[in-house]
Amino acid sequence: VLDPYARLLGLTVTVPLPGSATASLVIAPEHANTHGTCHGAVLFALADAALQAASNSHGPQALATTVSIHYLKPAAVGETVVATAVEEHLGGRLALYRIGVRRDADLLAVADGQVAIRR
Amino acid sequence: VLDPYARLLGLTVTVPLPGSATASLVIAPEHANTHGTCHGAVLFALADAALQAASNSHGPQALATTVSIHYLKPAAVGETVVATAVEEHLGGRLALYRIGVRRDADLLAVADGQVAIRR
Amino acid sequence: VLDPYARLLGLTVTVPLPGSATASLVIAPEHANTHGTCHGAVLFALADAALQAASNSHGPQALATTVSIHYLKPAAVGETVVATAVEEHLGGRLALYRIGVRRDADLLAVADGQVAIRR
Amino acid sequence: VLDPYARLLGLTVTVPLPGSATASLVIAPEHANTHGTCHGAVLFALADAALQAASNSHGPQALATTVSIHYLKPAAVGETVVATAVEEHLGGRLALYRIGVRRDADLLAVADGQVAIRR
Repeated sequence: VLDPYARLLGLTVTVPLPGSATASLVIAPEHANTHGTCHGAVLFALADAALQAASNSHGPQALATTVSIHYLKPAAVGETVVATAVEEHLGGRLALYRIGVRRDADLLAVADGQVAIRR
Repeated sequence: VLDPYARLLGLTVTVPLPGSATASLVIAPEHANTHGTCHGAVLFALADAALQAASNSHGPQALATTVSIHYLKPAAVGETVVATAVEEHLGGRLALYRIGVRRDADLLAVADGQVAIRR
Repeated sequence: VLDPYARLLGLTVTVPLPGSATASLVIAPEHANTHGTCHGAVLFALADAALQAASNSHGPQALATTVSIHYLKPAAVGETVVATAVEEHLGGRLALYRIGVRRDADLLAVADGQVAIRR
Repeated sequence: VLDPYARLLGLTVTVPLPGSATASLVIAPEHANTHGTCHGAVLFALADAALQAASNSHGPQALATTVSIHYLKPAAVGETVVATAVEEHLGGRLALYRIGVRRDADLLAVADGQVAIRR
């Protein structure tokens, strides 16, 4: 079930396996920045959606505490961008995910997301 | 001039002084996460808008390279949230900004944004 | 009481008030990088010592979970460098500190440190 | 050639291929924190040494601008810890490396290091 903000953006999210997830988006004109390329905050929202889906795939509720993103390359309107979150560490109270944001094989951004687990 | 994504979200941005900026938003239902509170990616977008305005206030184009955010407290739908970016370092090629996201005096999130300066 | 690594480096640490701390160091030749200036990992160790002292000043044990540092300016051998940690958020399980590393008024590096609190 | 700080710590560094590097260390008593386990700033120094070697393996001088580290598990005195840096992005002015710090196959910490390239 997508949350309201994911629906506003038009994201698609899948959870192939517990602890991992992908989020994808076709970049629309309303996702652009002043340069006409995909806004950095949209790439972040995509990474964040993958993080949220991956970290909540185990059952107990997980809430993001810290997320950092490095921007590497721009995406254009009309392109499809996919974020993939992989679990790097699952502890009792904290877990860490690595998220790659790609257009085909091209790495556009990488992010780290830490979540707190409510047990 | 707001970019398309800032208009989609409904952000208001002001640049009181070169090197600083504020971005504000009244949290609407479409900004919510699955818990019904403001989505973390919306707080990020707000911080990012303040970063963008502050870092581009000097003339040469600035592009975000790395942004990290720490989430501290949630915001509710209907509340007004304000991000304030302050310049911590302005170098020849890189600059660093500190962004606080607040509801009145309450600190909801803090972020660091590094930008590359195109001269 | 300084830990063995702080003693190896020659750090001095003070806790003026609960939730804040300073760590200082006179940069010695063994603290240098290949350029002959203070090694970035020494500035990190200084910031980390201030973080550790500030976050453990309340009683319950605090352990660093995530630390990020931005390097702004170099320091020279012979100079005195001071890191100051300030509490930005004290939650039930996590707390966040902002650390500035300075040579007099000059900001050399800024860091964010998140700690987990063992209760 | 190791810098003075790497020699103080006793690090060993190798560059198997341009863009990647490993740094290893046997944790000694002087590397301990107050809990008697390896100090977080030592794990950082190890990650930083791998970052430095990997990012300077191409020729032009690279200087760390931003490094973030997530601590996952502790290491004990007497154990051998190895940091491996892998290039994620090599741009004209900035490059990004991912560093894993391990004791055998166990992931103890992960770090991201961004460097500025002097051409």
